[in-house]
Amino acid sequence: MTERWVYSFDEMRDAKRDAGNDWEAVRALLGGKGANLADMSALGIPVPPGFTITTKACIEYQALGEHIPEGLWEQVEDALTRVAAVTGRTFAEPSNPLLVAVRSGAQFSMPGMMDTVLNVGMNDHIVDGMIENTGDARFVLDSFRRLLQMFGTVVLGVPSEEFEKVLSSARNEAGTDNELDEAVLRSLTTSFKSLIDASASQPFPTDPTSQLHDAVEAVFRSWHSRRAYDYRQASGIDHNLGTAVNIVAMVFGNAGPASGTGVVMSRDGTTGESAIEGDYLMNAQGEDVVAGSRPTKPIADLVSEVPECALELFATARLLENHYRDMQDIEFTIENGRLWILQTRSGKRTAQAAVKIAVDLANEGLITRDEALLRVSPDQIDTLMHPQFTAQDLASKPVFARGLNVSPGAAVGIAVFNPDLTQQWSSQGHHTILVRPETRPEDVHGMLSADGILTATGGRTSHAALVARQFGKPAITGADIEIDLLARTVTSEGTTIHEGEWLSLDGATGTVYQGKLATTAAEVGNDALSTLLAWADQRRVLKVRANADDSLEADRARKFGAEGVGLCRTEHMFFDSDRLPIVQRMILATSEAEQRAAIEELLPIQRQDFIGLLQAMDGLPVVIRLLDPPLHEFLPSRSELNRQISELERQLPEADLNQKTTDLTDLTNTRTLLARVETLSESNPMLGLRGVRLGLKLPHLTHMQVQAVVEAAAEVARDGGNPRPEIMVPLVGHHNELAQQRAMIHATITETETRLGTNVPVRIGTMIEVPRAALTCEQIVEHADFLSFGTNDLTQTTFAISRDDAESAFLADYLDTGILDKNPFSTIDASGVGRLMRIAMRDAQKTAPNIEVGICGEHGGDPESIKFCHQTGFSYVSCSSYRVPTARLAAAHAALEGNPTPRNTTSLSAIGTS
Amino acid sequence: MTERWVYSFDEMRDAKRDAGNDWEAVRALLGGKGANLADMSALGIPVPPGFTITTKACIEYQALGEHIPEGLWEQVEDALTRVAAVTGRTFAEPSNPLLVAVRSGAQFSMPGMMDTVLNVGMNDHIVDGMIENTGDARFVLDSFRRLLQMFGTVVLGVPSEEFEKVLSSARNEAGTDNELDEAVLRSLTTSFKSLIDASASQPFPTDPTSQLHDAVEAVFRSWHSRRAYDYRQASGIDHNLGTAVNIVAMVFGNAGPASGTGVVMSRDGTTGESAIEGDYLMNAQGEDVVAGSRPTKPIADLVSEVPECALELFATARLLENHYRDMQDIEFTIENGRLWILQTRSGKRTAQAAVKIAVDLANEGLITRDEALLRVSPDQIDTLMHPQFTAQDLASKPVFARGLNVSPGAAVGIAVFNPDLTQQWSSQGHHTILVRPETRPEDVHGMLSADGILTATGGRTSHAALVARQFGKPAITGADIEIDLLARTVTSEGTTIHEGEWLSLDGATGTVYQGKLATTAAEVGNDALSTLLAWADQRRVLKVRANADDSLEADRARKFGAEGVGLCRTEHMFFDSDRLPIVQRMILATSEAEQRAAIEELLPIQRQDFIGLLQAMDGLPVVIRLLDPPLHEFLPSRSELNRQISELERQLPEADLNQKTTDLTDLTNTRTLLARVETLSESNPMLGLRGVRLGLKLPHLTHMQVQAVVEAAAEVARDGGNPRPEIMVPLVGHHNELAQQRAMIHATITETETRLGTNVPVRIGTMIEVPRAALTCEQIVEHADFLSFGTNDLTQTTFAISRDDAESAFLADYLDTGILDKNPFSTIDASGVGRLMRIAMRDAQKTAPNIEVGICGEHGGDPESIKFCHQTGFSYVSCSSYRVPTARLAAAHAALEGNPTPRNTTSLSAIGTS
Repeated sequence: MTERWVYSFDEMRDAKRDAGNDWEAVRALLGGKGANLADMSALGIPVPPGFTITTKACIEYQALGEHIPEGLWEQVEDALTRVAAVTGRTFAEPSNPLLVAVRSGAQFSMPGMMDTVLNVGMNDHIVDGMIENTGDARFVLDSFRRLLQMFGTVVLGVPSEEFEKVLSSARNEAGTDNELDEAVLRSLTTSFKSLIDASASQPFPTDPTSQLHDAVEAVFRSWHSRRAYDYRQASGIDHNLGTAVNIVAMVFGNAGPASGTGVVMSRDGTTGESAIEGDYLMNAQGEDVVAGSRPTKPIADLVSEVPECALELFATARLLENHYRDMQDIEFTIENGRLWILQTRSGKRTAQAAVKIAVDLANEGLITRDEALLRVSPDQIDTLMHPQFTAQDLASKPVFARGLNVSPGAAVGIAVFNPDLTQQWSSQGHHTILVRPETRPEDVHGMLSADGILTATGGRTSHAALVARQFGKPAITGADIEIDLLARTVTSEGTTIHEGEWLSLDGATGTVYQGKLATTAAEVGNDALSTLLAWADQRRVLKVRANADDSLEADRARKFGAEGVGLCRTEHMFFDSDRLPIVQRMILATSEAEQRAAIEELLPIQRQDFIGLLQAMDGLPVVIRLLDPPLHEFLPSRSELNRQISELERQLPEADLNQKTTDLTDLTNTRTLLARVETLSESNPMLGLRGVRLGLKLPHLTHMQVQAVVEAAAEVARDGGNPRPEIMVPLVGHHNELAQQRAMIHATITETETRLGTNVPVRIGTMIEVPRAALTCEQIVEHADFLSFGTNDLTQTTFAISRDDAESAFLADYLDTGILDKNPFSTIDASGVGRLMRIAMRDAQKTAPNIEVGICGEHGGDPESIKFCHQTGFSYVSCSSYRVPTARLAAAHAALEGNPTPRNTTSLSAIGTS
Repeated sequence: MTERWVYSFDEMRDAKRDAGNDWEAVRALLGGKGANLADMSALGIPVPPGFTITTKACIEYQALGEHIPEGLWEQVEDALTRVAAVTGRTFAEPSNPLLVAVRSGAQFSMPGMMDTVLNVGMNDHIVDGMIENTGDARFVLDSFRRLLQMFGTVVLGVPSEEFEKVLSSARNEAGTDNELDEAVLRSLTTSFKSLIDASASQPFPTDPTSQLHDAVEAVFRSWHSRRAYDYRQASGIDHNLGTAVNIVAMVFGNAGPASGTGVVMSRDGTTGESAIEGDYLMNAQGEDVVAGSRPTKPIADLVSEVPECALELFATARLLENHYRDMQDIEFTIENGRLWILQTRSGKRTAQAAVKIAVDLANEGLITRDEALLRVSPDQIDTLMHPQFTAQDLASKPVFARGLNVSPGAAVGIAVFNPDLTQQWSSQGHHTILVRPETRPEDVHGMLSADGILTATGGRTSHAALVARQFGKPAITGADIEIDLLARTVTSEGTTIHEGEWLSLDGATGTVYQGKLATTAAEVGNDALSTLLAWADQRRVLKVRANADDSLEADRARKFGAEGVGLCRTEHMFFDSDRLPIVQRMILATSEAEQRAAIEELLPIQRQDFIGLLQAMDGLPVVIRLLDPPLHEFLPSRSELNRQISELERQLPEADLNQKTTDLTDLTNTRTLLARVETLSESNPMLGLRGVRLGLKLPHLTHMQVQAVVEAAAEVARDGGNPRPEIMVPLVGHHNELAQQRAMIHATITETETRLGTNVPVRIGTMIEVPRAALTCEQIVEHADFLSFGTNDLTQTTFAISRDDAESAFLADYLDTGILDKNPFSTIDASGVGRLMRIAMRDAQKTAPNIEVGICGEHGGDPESIKFCHQTGFSYVSCSSYRVPTARLAAAHAALEGNPTPRNTTSLSAIGTS
């Protein structure tokens, strides 16, 4: 007995039985589209009659060396006979011909990758018969033209441009598609046939059955097309699944005044409101709706035109939404007063709508709260946290340049090339885009004032990118632009923008637009969002903290739901313009006394910073990291100083006497500074004198920072607050480093508390950001009250990749060529860095089973990395404040993962185009 | 019954019995010296009578809060009575008094750490009696003076300087020690007594028994002195062992013309020749021999002075050597024609003597070959590989500066400040010392021409240090010197050396001497050394290869016993002055054609290099690493180019018209070069575009290098050789990198072999030098025929420490403050880096159980690291050619470790001063 290769849409029961009553197996057998059409058919929804050739047939076809399996054509013929019976039309019968669409449909949606041929079953005879039957020659000829074109391209391999060329010259004569008259269409079919004769290896088959057979084989073969292969490769879809083929009776929305076609959404895809939405056209075909050649009408109007169909359509939309338990995007056609549903799928929606729909569906009892959580992706939350451009503007404004999409959101402002000027203009109420070759810590004030940041160099984790994400500023780095800082211009592909001219940045895509695009504001107070995140909080196990360096940021983070500060980078406080001179004095001090004096001057400033933070996070833990970066980051760069010296030297001979004296002093000072900078400079600063190495080398500084923490905590406590400071030591690689630094810290705490007569508990922990620390965690944890993985540096050292250098030099290539499938600076590299983290976690727990372990790198806001942290048993993740809502949802997803979800939720993902 | 606290020297049998017949337990009980004296006594060797108070007594004394355990003094009195009986003298009896030495003696030798008091048992009465008895007032008073001085210092805590002050003013009046006459000595004893009365908390005890008791307690207490504690801490000796106390009858070599004293060695400690050697003085005390106040006589002369004693002494020396199975250093005294052996211990020897003695003892059948191997430390072999300064010169020449002892050996030459000039002067036959602030790859020709290298900056693994060790050049880096490159001077502590003046470097100690010191040449062809290394080869499991970049080095390495090349750094070939311009052209190429042309030009040069290497290592594997360093290392530095530009700009206004044109062109070219250098520059080049990242980015270069290898192998094979090339890919962090690079390499091999019609197997492997590679070895090994740990980079990345930056900035502090106990760049950090290596090894063997694994970092020549490699199951180590003999022995030691060695070999280490 031959295998069963074919199932009619109304044979869902058979398919289910043969697939062991498993919905995924049905989809594997019939493909997503086929399963879906059969499913609707079983629900009594009017889908055009048709049948599916199984994926197994495709696999067998390939296995036989591209030969049709035994019995397939016979089963197709039987199924076609049944379709004929239902429609009352007969395939290849000129008087009342049945036409069919031949559509691919794999198990997993591969949009646009595979082939479709419509109107199969026509030839000159049948055209004549149809014209006679319908009296609509233009419609019939146009359908034939489309068959020739699609068949020629898909089955016979004629380049589609060849058809387009002929078509557009005909259009040029006649206007749009719709208005091609009978004569033009008739000559077009002739031209298309000649084109096929000339270009293809075989002529167009006039026999309808041959057309059908050839089209089916073409779809089978398209599974192994280059583009389908690449798509599967990129999406991780198995190459051995094969595709099903759906053969569906054609229905025509352009069959007269009681015909029409359109699209309906069961809810509003933009706002998420629970209201039917859509467009339609009477006496038209689907393509006409999409092409916009005629103005469409709002779906509500359908009620007055074809009331019964309209009511049936709305009821069907509701039915399908209930059935698939999600908002549906439905294609329909009305043929002579009869409604046909051609396709239904889960509707596309904005992030805002996604949240509202999920919450509403749960509140309506259609899905559970857990399902609602899983319906929204963490990335959608992220999108919600930033303003967006409008779709119209994106389409209409000229693209100026492209770069790396390092920090999402839309920013519009005038180009400024200097951080000071940015600050000045912004304070005057201008919107600004800071444009720099690259950014440095001393540019931060400009970056914070700007609406967006654009740089010519720098990767995904460059300074600009990190700061931008931290502060939720849209930013594009490594853009294809040339900056002339003297002329104050930025140029890309021949277009030059001067300072003061408008630029718009789409941080989500990395696109720079010339001019001023409109934006829509972020909806952060969104009610549905609060509800959803509250549900997430009930589910998640991981705590979510924020990286915050000051009280403003801490306030914002707390509003977004942060449960403490996981990382306060004290050095960011040092870069403030009123503090940097003191810090520089400390570094350049020539005596210990001078150095101590500068450090003392920093004490009240730091204390005030910490008071703000501890107040903002009252009752919640605040992790304060001791100074981390190498000292030369606080000084001007060597090249800048060299430039200044050259400049001064050049001016010297021309200056008058007074000026000369001043210049000479400047020159000497600058040279001294340069010498100091040279001394401090390191060949690999990332691996140099920083972190705990600095803390041990400059005990006064450590002392001052710890003293500031303790004094701040004492003051907050005195005012009735509940401060929970935690001190974190960075870059520890050996437990002895931590032991010595901890002893210093402990001594200062005791001394300060004794002096103040207070007693606020201060925990002391360390970062695990050096491979050796991870490998020796069993010892390190003996000296730590908590651990926090610094995954940025841990990734750099584990990969031996310097982020800034690598991203432009080779990391992008690595992602392109598939050496890496993900940027390890965005998502934790589970097999390398992650393995080290698991080793560390396991070893730490040997010594201290209940040790609190968190993560405070960039990865703390990345959903996949959050999942990793959940699975590895961490206590919390810490991320930038804007990422906190994202992290809350991602943590809930991580907790829900592995919990079985009901069958219907799974079937949901079956719905889609293929 | 009270415990037994005391054993006389002739009660070895009791001690053995009480210690369970275990020699180590005897040493633990009696201390090394006591056990040794008892041992000699049992052998019938004439040691002065005496006894040992056990270590247990010391421990009990401490446990009782510094109180003498019950029964101890009684047992001491009994033992003292036995000594009196043997000597015929009586303690505290003025007419014929017994004097004793009270000496500490712990289980493990702690030279100079603990206390000794001689001549115990004297007071004014006894002095009178002794003078009457001996008729030698000067001798008796001098002995009393010494007792007062030692007792005052050790027991009563008077600062030794106080005594020295009084003594030296007396000496100033009278000349040397020996010539102090009776009157002076008598007044000295009075002064010393007054000094004690004035400074000490208690007066000098005139009762001999009190002296003895106080001295014993002082020795007990000295176990807990600060210096003894620190020494134990540093040597890893248990603080709870306690010390024994030996009480020995004094014998006097200055008792008349038939008395004398001296030292005899059973073999020559300088050359290792098997001939008795030593010095003596008649009518003198041991201190006189050491002080050199009178000229000593060669030991052979003793035969004519006291023939019987001489023959007995020589026989005893032979006996002791046979008994302890090692060359002995023996102290003896002849008192009135009677020989006394005061001490024997394993004799100090030069590295050369160590080798010869070990081999001779084995050949004489006294020790096994395995023992001979263990008698020589790998560091001694290392010392043998370099020329040495003579001891006289080291003592007499002025020290100019000190730095890091990064590459051992003695170098003498004139200071030169420029690599080109170094090359020029060296080629003219001058000996040169290249003096530079630091060295860069482009200085290598100068470094290779120089006799030694001295730099102001750079650590143990700086460029200068690495290259110097690689080529066996003595070098000192990070010295406390200031270099003025314009004035061509180097200054340290006020002394300035000009170019052309003589400097001498002791690379073994890091000392720089002013002037020209004499050296003795290295004995590399030493017969005994070859024999020893051949024995080592029979024992070791690890293979030893060499790091060699050219045929000269490979030849040398092979002579030293290398079994292949473990690392050929192809980039070293690129730095040659005739090649660098081509390499620079390749880097600076503005078109692919230009780049390929430069690469093509390098092909024949590389091929020739590889032919040389493969011929030198005919039949042995040669691992060729593809280009590793970042490209900017081949270009001038930014600061150098900036300097050139400033210079050209300065000259421009003053130049004439023709010159101006030339200058302008130069200026433009230099600016272009600078721009390119800026583009290539990286913030952390160590973590940047290098290794396989470069190999993937510049496929033409990879192709050229592989082609050169295959063509070279083909040519060597054609000439009848047996080439075994292996290609190694550096800096792999992800298995996909290796997979892609391997595919490139494989394609080139196939293509080249097909073209040439040859078929020489070429293995393809990779370095494991990035933590991620170690963590994912299970995958990486799927694409590798062999693995080689690059422990330099692996240490840098695992610690997140850049060697060059760290060593001057904080690593030295870390070693000082005990954060690190060893420099991880010298010895593999077993708990961090080593753990990663063990993980990698275990995982690699899961996939490929027989994978060949080696190590090619600096650690490959470090004995402790070699032991680690042996234990971890590596196949080979690779080190610089000069280190190959060291590594051969170290590998044998590693293999022998854990094998039990016979009892007497262990007892050997018991012998020493304490």
